[in-house]
Amino acid sequence: MPSDETQIRELVSAWMKATREKDPDTVLSLMTDDVKFLVPGRPPFGKDEFEKAARSQAADAPSYDGTSNIQEIHIEGSTAYAIAELTLLTTPKDGSPATRRAGHTLTIFRKLDGRWLLARDANLLPPPSKRP
Amino acid sequence: MPSDETQIRELVSAWMKATREKDPDTVLSLMTDDVKFLVPGRPPFGKDEFEKAARSQAADAPSYDGTSNIQEIHIEGSTAYAIAELTLLTTPKDGSPATRRAGHTLTIFRKLDGRWLLARDANLLPPPSKRP
Repeated sequence: MPSDETQIRELVSAWMKATREKDPDTVLSLMTDDVKFLVPGRPPFGKDEFEKAARSQAADAPSYDGTSNIQEIHIEGSTAYAIAELTLLTTPKDGSPATRRAGHTLTIFRKLDGRWLLARDANLLPPPSKRP
Repeated sequence: MPSDETQIRELVSAWMKATREKDPDTVLSLMTDDVKFLVPGRPPFGKDEFEKAARSQAADAPSYDGTSNIQEIHIEGSTAYAIAELTLLTTPKDGSPATRRAGHTLTIFRKLDGRWLLARDANLLPPPSKRP
């Protein structure tokens, strides 16, 4: 049985891989039902809104590739938090140049029925710039 | 002895009061030595940098007043997290109009020697606009 820290690192890797592969079912299986996402400039949102956005990705949506470099993990019982540096590369389908955004995240994980899930996520990345 | 949740709420109230009263010693006593602050658009920073900024407030610095409306607290052992809605009113000394910023925070608290302290803070408030 991998340690709690290894399981959380594997969860983050699986999340990034499923995002890259546009696999919303897998991403949705990695979060609690009461998950809350905090990003700058808008109120927190939950799983329904995340799912709606993930599923509405049209064929001409950009591709995302990213790395989440975990800087610390603190675990106590069934609660954990991690700080990571997130780099996100967005490649538009129309051939225009890829853009790179970077910033930090503070994430809460919760162990439910023996399995770690993402429960709260504050994402400090600047919002994507509007393309003309 | 107040409950852990009450103690955390009192810590947040004391923090807001000391900020309003420009009392950096009190604010610094409410955080762990290894505290990390995450804000949009810059790398995380720690207690030294917080202290430097708090103590450099000149006499002509603006006044801050704010409310932190806690929406949830989750406690496990000596670790807790909270999501709050933060409203910050900034009143310049030069008589120009006050500005109001609002956004959410995700904060980690740690109990050390029986006392709750702020340990990690992700602050999603938009950065203050530059005044001309």
